[in-house]
Amino acid sequence: MTVSPATLDAVLAQVDADLDNSLDRLTALLAIQSISTDSAFAADCRRAAQWLVDDLVAQGFAASARATPGHPVVVAHASATQGPHVLFYGHYDVQPVDPLALWHTDPFAAVIQTDAQGRRTIVARGASDDKGQLMTFIEACRAWKAVNGTLPVRVSLLLEGEEESGGKNLPPFMVANADELRADIALVCDTDMWDRTTPSITTMLRGLVGEEIEITCAARDLHSGMFGNAARNPNQVLAEIIASLRAPDGSVTLPGFYDDVAEVPDAVKAQWQGLGFNETAFLAEAGLSIPAGESARSVLEQTWSRPTCEINGMIGGYTGDGFKTVIPAKASAKISFRLVSGMSPDKIRAAFRQHVRSRIPADCSVTFKEHGGSAAITVPADGIYLQQALAALTGEWNKDAVITGSGGSIPVVGEFKSILGMDTLLIGFAQVDDNIHSPNEKYDLDSFHRGIRSWARVLAAFAG
Amino acid sequence: MTVSPATLDAVLAQVDADLDNSLDRLTALLAIQSISTDSAFAADCRRAAQWLVDDLVAQGFAASARATPGHPVVVAHASATQGPHVLFYGHYDVQPVDPLALWHTDPFAAVIQTDAQGRRTIVARGASDDKGQLMTFIEACRAWKAVNGTLPVRVSLLLEGEEESGGKNLPPFMVANADELRADIALVCDTDMWDRTTPSITTMLRGLVGEEIEITCAARDLHSGMFGNAARNPNQVLAEIIASLRAPDGSVTLPGFYDDVAEVPDAVKAQWQGLGFNETAFLAEAGLSIPAGESARSVLEQTWSRPTCEINGMIGGYTGDGFKTVIPAKASAKISFRLVSGMSPDKIRAAFRQHVRSRIPADCSVTFKEHGGSAAITVPADGIYLQQALAALTGEWNKDAVITGSGGSIPVVGEFKSILGMDTLLIGFAQVDDNIHSPNEKYDLDSFHRGIRSWARVLAAFAG
Repeated sequence: MTVSPATLDAVLAQVDADLDNSLDRLTALLAIQSISTDSAFAADCRRAAQWLVDDLVAQGFAASARATPGHPVVVAHASATQGPHVLFYGHYDVQPVDPLALWHTDPFAAVIQTDAQGRRTIVARGASDDKGQLMTFIEACRAWKAVNGTLPVRVSLLLEGEEESGGKNLPPFMVANADELRADIALVCDTDMWDRTTPSITTMLRGLVGEEIEITCAARDLHSGMFGNAARNPNQVLAEIIASLRAPDGSVTLPGFYDDVAEVPDAVKAQWQGLGFNETAFLAEAGLSIPAGESARSVLEQTWSRPTCEINGMIGGYTGDGFKTVIPAKASAKISFRLVSGMSPDKIRAAFRQHVRSRIPADCSVTFKEHGGSAAITVPADGIYLQQALAALTGEWNKDAVITGSGGSIPVVGEFKSILGMDTLLIGFAQVDDNIHSPNEKYDLDSFHRGIRSWARVLAAFAG
Repeated sequence: MTVSPATLDAVLAQVDADLDNSLDRLTALLAIQSISTDSAFAADCRRAAQWLVDDLVAQGFAASARATPGHPVVVAHASATQGPHVLFYGHYDVQPVDPLALWHTDPFAAVIQTDAQGRRTIVARGASDDKGQLMTFIEACRAWKAVNGTLPVRVSLLLEGEEESGGKNLPPFMVANADELRADIALVCDTDMWDRTTPSITTMLRGLVGEEIEITCAARDLHSGMFGNAARNPNQVLAEIIASLRAPDGSVTLPGFYDDVAEVPDAVKAQWQGLGFNETAFLAEAGLSIPAGESARSVLEQTWSRPTCEINGMIGGYTGDGFKTVIPAKASAKISFRLVSGMSPDKIRAAFRQHVRSRIPADCSVTFKEHGGSAAITVPADGIYLQQALAALTGEWNKDAVITGSGGSIPVVGEFKSILGMDTLLIGFAQVDDNIHSPNEKYDLDSFHRGIRSWARVLAAFAG
């Protein structure tokens, strides 16, 4: 079914007319505290899944929340069967909100703010990552159905609740339901635009290895006056291990860490140079001015195409008010590695554990806890769906859509390929300053509104 | 007034007969949650001070709780005026109880436990440090008054509530009340016995410099996928600073750190060697087997006569359940240095701050917070009070009392000397495994009972 310009115009007009209702629905979803990593919020995760099921059923989808050993997976299918089959993926779970004191408003009571430049944003945990983004697709479907009674292509949705918690339940769910979920192409809305006026499709994603280590020295906390110097301090042991992970030139020191890392092809580098990326502005937006990491690499290279090692959290000893002269028994850290194409998560995890074990004194011990592992992804840049989607985005934003890399990790893309044999298009409307995973997360109303319109156009483009 | 053997025997018999009541009183004092470092417990600190005032007034002391800008100071004077004048010092405040999960019983509901070897202990926060210890002296006074109607020497008490919180209010209080507080000798009960059968008087105490640092890199928490490598991670900066504080040989790296540290005289080393200190057993009691710190120094030297640098606490980023791929804006640590005789707290603090500042990247910042500073103390080993006290302790324990050093810091000893011109005798009955500052703090009933008897004898000895 080819979509006529008049039909598409009517759908886009419907998106515009219904925007206030769309925002009300997003606000209702944002009010559900679906923090997947903290088991105290398990019931909230179930509520978020059911909210989505109810909304999709109301549109005419056959939708249900499927039980897993963790949080439920929402699966929905439209009754329309013409055209290619697309599987849209999003996640309804969100990051924890701490430090809560740094939020200016309640993280679960979304508010719309207007800054001095007239930029309007909706502020809440999950506004961007990923409730706001996933609702752009659902609202586009709603507008199509309202105007046309049906969708221009065959649409299924897969909305999970463990993306932020390294959950391991989605891959077996995919395996068990492969025939139901397999489509011609997967669509993921969990990435950024290039900037506020330039749409983009991401074709490179880094992988992730998450590790938590806990070092135990003494059998109990000790008095630092009585045992200082003589008793091993796990804070010191942990700090020395962390310090040893980076060389003076900023490179990661694990043996073999860069062995499987390829240089970015000159052609791709040339395209990146054409993007006019401004390192100074990128860092300044975060309050920084001096690039860290590998001193010989550009910031864009470092964040898109180089592996990382970051200390996401560490704690040991007395950290409350005042002072306590203690030598703690234990210290721990959460450490993640972003991987680029070619690197093996298992190999990097093993190298890290060996590096740590070799630095633990003989009378101390260490335990490791795995928090997810996924390889990097490179999406083929020549498919028909990619070309159709680029054209649709260019039409909506009146500016050529670009192809970009991303520093983030979206393991599901690898699983779509390995389990379901599908390629994925990563089309997102987030901005770099959305504060995802941070206090005061936000999503531009422009991203939301034109994101909905973009999906309406992409679905039309796929119809041919 | 010389004390007759019959009088002393009657006093000691009274101590024995009243022991159950003494334990009840200690239990009541231990129930008060006088955690000085946390302002949430300020009212509890006032209650502990008032409890002591009431108990001392009931014995006939002129006692009162004196206001300070922080927690009150309890001052008491006995009406008896004969003989030398002693000022007893103790502290009624206690350390925080975290991690609470590691306590086997309620830290503020004292219980008496008997281990497999028949050793009986009272378990509670403050059981040893310092409520149990200070009550040994108060109970000795009570027994003297019960038997004799008066004390054998002139006794005053000074009981503070900020010893565990680096409080700065006691020195100005001493200055303002110098004439009232000045005595012939100060007595402090806040130290250990050599072992469970050998009494000791401590004549060397280390000083303390407490510092808290907070490192700020980005203006907000960042997503490690988006900013990893390129944005400076304060966890990494802090870990590198901490790692740089110790050299591979275990020595502290601050420039000039050991410049003013004297070697222990050979005669003192010889006496220490005679103590038969067992390094292996000392470490084994804490669950360790390999000495840390300066590899060329014995454990006894390291803990008694060498300065230290210990990381008492550190925190940065996400430390809750699960995982969060964040690059935090800030990371912080609490770091303390124990100083030996000759070292200047101001000089060490300045060297530390310079060391830290020189390692902060130009686009990041650091703030420092001071948590106490005191020089080390060496008590003259030849005074008449020291000789009388050693003889009294030897009489009670049927074993020669020994003179020892201590790794701990008791700043008030320096203040007694500098502000009031008094020397101090450090006589304590704690054991090395009392778990002070740790979960399941305890005090031997033997320490409590024979500690009371020891003070009864010491007061008699001072009477000549």
